[in-house]
Amino acid sequence: MTESSKYKFLNNINSPADLKKIDLRDLVVVCDELRSFIIEAASKNPGHFGASLGVVELTVALHYTLNTPKDKIVWDVGHQAYGHKILTGRRDLFNTNRKYKGISGFPNPAESEYDSFIAGHSSTSISAAQGISIASRLINEKINTVAVIGDGSMTAGMAFEGLNNMSAYKNDVLIILNDNKIAIDENSGALKEYFTDIATSKTYNRVKEDVWQFLGRLNRLGADVQGFTQRIDNAIKSIVMRNSNLFESLNIRYFGPVDGHDVILLTKLLDDIKDIPGPKLLHIITTKGKGFKQAEQNQTLWHAAPGKFDIHTGKLLQEKEDVNEPQKFQDIFGDAIVKLASENKKIAAITPAMLSGCSLIKMSKEFPDRCFDVGIAEQHAVTFAAGLARNGMIPFCNLYSSFSQRAYDQIIHDVALQNLHVVLCLDRAGLVGQDGATHHGAFDISFLRCIPNMVISAPMDEFQLRNLMFTAQLEKNAFPFVIRYPRGKSTKPKSEIQFEEMEIGKGRCLIKGENLAIVTIGTPGLTALKIAAELDKENIKISVYDMIFAKPLDENLLHDIFSNHKYIISIEDNSIAGGFGTSLLEFINDNDYHIKLQRFGIPDKFIAHGTQEQLYEECGYNFNNILEDVKKICYKLINC
Amino acid sequence: MTESSKYKFLNNINSPADLKKIDLRDLVVVCDELRSFIIEAASKNPGHFGASLGVVELTVALHYTLNTPKDKIVWDVGHQAYGHKILTGRRDLFNTNRKYKGISGFPNPAESEYDSFIAGHSSTSISAAQGISIASRLINEKINTVAVIGDGSMTAGMAFEGLNNMSAYKNDVLIILNDNKIAIDENSGALKEYFTDIATSKTYNRVKEDVWQFLGRLNRLGADVQGFTQRIDNAIKSIVMRNSNLFESLNIRYFGPVDGHDVILLTKLLDDIKDIPGPKLLHIITTKGKGFKQAEQNQTLWHAAPGKFDIHTGKLLQEKEDVNEPQKFQDIFGDAIVKLASENKKIAAITPAMLSGCSLIKMSKEFPDRCFDVGIAEQHAVTFAAGLARNGMIPFCNLYSSFSQRAYDQIIHDVALQNLHVVLCLDRAGLVGQDGATHHGAFDISFLRCIPNMVISAPMDEFQLRNLMFTAQLEKNAFPFVIRYPRGKSTKPKSEIQFEEMEIGKGRCLIKGENLAIVTIGTPGLTALKIAAELDKENIKISVYDMIFAKPLDENLLHDIFSNHKYIISIEDNSIAGGFGTSLLEFINDNDYHIKLQRFGIPDKFIAHGTQEQLYEECGYNFNNILEDVKKICYKLINC
Repeated sequence: MTESSKYKFLNNINSPADLKKIDLRDLVVVCDELRSFIIEAASKNPGHFGASLGVVELTVALHYTLNTPKDKIVWDVGHQAYGHKILTGRRDLFNTNRKYKGISGFPNPAESEYDSFIAGHSSTSISAAQGISIASRLINEKINTVAVIGDGSMTAGMAFEGLNNMSAYKNDVLIILNDNKIAIDENSGALKEYFTDIATSKTYNRVKEDVWQFLGRLNRLGADVQGFTQRIDNAIKSIVMRNSNLFESLNIRYFGPVDGHDVILLTKLLDDIKDIPGPKLLHIITTKGKGFKQAEQNQTLWHAAPGKFDIHTGKLLQEKEDVNEPQKFQDIFGDAIVKLASENKKIAAITPAMLSGCSLIKMSKEFPDRCFDVGIAEQHAVTFAAGLARNGMIPFCNLYSSFSQRAYDQIIHDVALQNLHVVLCLDRAGLVGQDGATHHGAFDISFLRCIPNMVISAPMDEFQLRNLMFTAQLEKNAFPFVIRYPRGKSTKPKSEIQFEEMEIGKGRCLIKGENLAIVTIGTPGLTALKIAAELDKENIKISVYDMIFAKPLDENLLHDIFSNHKYIISIEDNSIAGGFGTSLLEFINDNDYHIKLQRFGIPDKFIAHGTQEQLYEECGYNFNNILEDVKKICYKLINC
Repeated sequence: MTESSKYKFLNNINSPADLKKIDLRDLVVVCDELRSFIIEAASKNPGHFGASLGVVELTVALHYTLNTPKDKIVWDVGHQAYGHKILTGRRDLFNTNRKYKGISGFPNPAESEYDSFIAGHSSTSISAAQGISIASRLINEKINTVAVIGDGSMTAGMAFEGLNNMSAYKNDVLIILNDNKIAIDENSGALKEYFTDIATSKTYNRVKEDVWQFLGRLNRLGADVQGFTQRIDNAIKSIVMRNSNLFESLNIRYFGPVDGHDVILLTKLLDDIKDIPGPKLLHIITTKGKGFKQAEQNQTLWHAAPGKFDIHTGKLLQEKEDVNEPQKFQDIFGDAIVKLASENKKIAAITPAMLSGCSLIKMSKEFPDRCFDVGIAEQHAVTFAAGLARNGMIPFCNLYSSFSQRAYDQIIHDVALQNLHVVLCLDRAGLVGQDGATHHGAFDISFLRCIPNMVISAPMDEFQLRNLMFTAQLEKNAFPFVIRYPRGKSTKPKSEIQFEEMEIGKGRCLIKGENLAIVTIGTPGLTALKIAAELDKENIKISVYDMIFAKPLDENLLHDIFSNHKYIISIEDNSIAGGFGTSLLEFINDNDYHIKLQRFGIPDKFIAHGTQEQLYEECGYNFNNILEDVKKICYKLINC
């Protein structure tokens, strides 16, 4: 099949206006084409396509029915928005998805007027849509506002805060609950069972269906559908359900559940309910990965395409994992926690919906009693950890660095203030690459460093990660202990290594040179070593120090460093505003050193997406950038 | 009445063991005494007593039934815990409540083994109790864990995250929902109506009551109450309620609602249900301020006693507000927002349950359409604000500094990353005084300063607060704008003042001297002026600069300062770890100045409670401390 015949409709859709010209009956074909397009694109340029495949019909129905961009669609989480991007003028750019300088993997208002709100972190859509809708009322602009939220995102407290406030102030938001019974990993908690109950309640479904069919007829006859819908719906409520619905107990009118893959039904439904005043919720049932067999069958693996693949067989095109390749940091964590848990019965592990993302699958199988996936609920995760610690357990709470921002108050108020033995493992610290601005772990050293009682560490390699984890769980170290590590691979292939205790707040000298010292924390130490090796070829000897701990600082080592060098370079995979380098400045000042420190790290701006290497370069702290600067300084120092 | 006859029972209760010796029938008298004791204490030493009066019976029933401190009670929020403190060995210390070096106004594990978890911020109890309960199971220790949570605290997403996870992992937590239909201000959102519905559902109540009476009989007969309770309760559920209950839809067994002021009933009930396995919730109806007429009638005013009062008449003993007294900062905000809103229709105001605490009452009356009290829901408050801003409004979101920690991710992800025109007014920034460690706004400059796009300001006085608010809402300043200001009073009595625009990132020289400069932000500028005046008496002329903005810094002014002085002092009402002074260090280093900066501010430790003045002294940045240091430095500089 040629390209043009393959995407007969899609190739002519450059905006929702083009979509609206298509006959309702042909939307099924549009959906097929859109789905194929997404699968084909993802096969060459892997991304989070599972969620987007699940909402192909919804996306088409929304843009067919609504008047975007005047009407607002708030996607929650943005993973769902691939189809939306393709239908809103970004079809030909879609091969740049998540690439450096290309389009973002998430909705981004700076990218398109069709993207009404950013959505990298989950569960924000209800609150945002409410704000948008109320603002439109206040500025006398009549629009429809739709929040599309997955069932996984409903577990976060923030979504509940939004729901609770939905009926408090007049607004006409339509929430579409995209119920695919899965977030990244299986949903946790009672809400999951609740949705299953509601979706399979036969009486309710049967009556609802009758009503919808009836309404469909009425609509064609031009009756007062809105008034009628309200009356009939209230009747159903009181007779069949007796307020039996979570949403209706929160004064949100509930419609559904309906088949989210029937584009004709969805289009008609949206047309019927979009203008009903007040907050309302349409519950649709979808299949994540719909239309791509492998993704439907293994939704966790295919949440994001695991690599380039054959679109017919689903076979991954990359070669098999090379056993000689270094392990990912997340896997080193995942192996180490199982080993530690087998030796220390007090150890527990907690993740908010990232069982595979942070490699806790093995732990969940070997120690199911001590491994807790609490769903998307970072606040609960941290305070639950504090509760475990209060009663004698040693919880390792694993959070992506950028998601830990959700639990900031709990880290301060429940963990640090009570000085509890909670180990916070922050995965994806630093620049994460293709997920971009919403996902970079850019700030954690800055925002954790001001909290009293915290120990903040970052391993340079797999040995240190293991040893820091071992050290953190020792009874004598019963205080809050942060271990931040990056997305990506460590230095060496997997091998059996003994744990070794590390001294809290103790750094190390990696290379002793003269004049100039590079002082690092975490994996940037590897860059420093490469730079030193390169300079060594020119017979320039610099020092390299790996501080390991951002808090407490190794004061003895720092006195040694600042007494014996003329110029200091710091490198960190964190914002230079208030980060590790800044903590060195505080030490320099408070101890009356007069020495210049040049700080390399994430500059004070939001960094978009690209490969980690591209972004390190953009931020000026990759090997080449720093080498060049260091050379210049060294030449100057030598010539002084 | 003499003291001893007045507190016949209470005077002999030095621990729950003493309480248990008392006959069940006498608990009513114990409750009367405890209530009188709390009122009498609060009349002399005002505190948050409304919530504690509401749970007198519950407190007595809990300690009578449970085996504390082995069994754990998690109070949420800690305001409820006065009776608990009095019954657990702190009766004679209770006159030191909230005083410097005295007992804390909140539960504090460092203070007593009976305080199982800290609780200054709301809605943490369910997660904490779950952690405690699961830990006890894992370490094979059989205990009861009870979370006592008010209906106001239920609106926070965190409580919902806890509820959603309650049934996911085996635990026996008993949640007691203390439903007094009010948090600090009236509850917001649908949950409030929901609780009212549930509490007044006649069929349900009647059947429940029958069952309880029946169970009471059974209990005395020694039947298998637990098994029976489960069966009968399931029957009630399916017949009367059809799963009609929020909690039951989350797989939490629901009991109630019952009269929370019937101590005998509560005691029997707790005895019956405490050992029922699995998560369960007892819904009790109480009156906030119960037993003190004035507090019952005006629950918002008497949330905390507004001052010393006569226990018989409820009349406040303090003199009338002196019109010549300076206004509180919160009232300056409250007046200014109304004035600005009357001039600019785009302005809206948002508070999470602090309508009176942040003085938005007037706004809510004059512009009800544009004033939003969203209940305890900081995350929603901020993203809702972002949604309003996305669609053309200019929201002022008012958060207590320490509670803004709850919305940290939303500030980064929804406001700053989208560079939206949201004004964040952080009240209670700096040391707040008697509420202590959980409530100090100690970290906001540190944790906000690393966020790109943020403007961070702090007014020195009422004029600046007004002018910053005026400036923040100008169309040309359409970016995230933080205004932090302290608890307490400004400098001058209320007067009519015109708004004046301020230049973003522009500081000012208050006094031009030589050698030494004090550089401040916010109200510490007033301290600096006093110090300069004192030194002037000795003919020592120092400079004083009020930077107004912590971000962006006034670089021109800083170049001037660092070029023309030999020694710099910074003062801030924020942590010196990563705060304002540190931002000056970054500037000094990056611009190659070699100058000593001495930073005064909150040290890197948690600060307890006391008056603000006592705490400033403890932290070393009150007038006397700094004056002494500055004098020494000046003498040295002059003699150099």
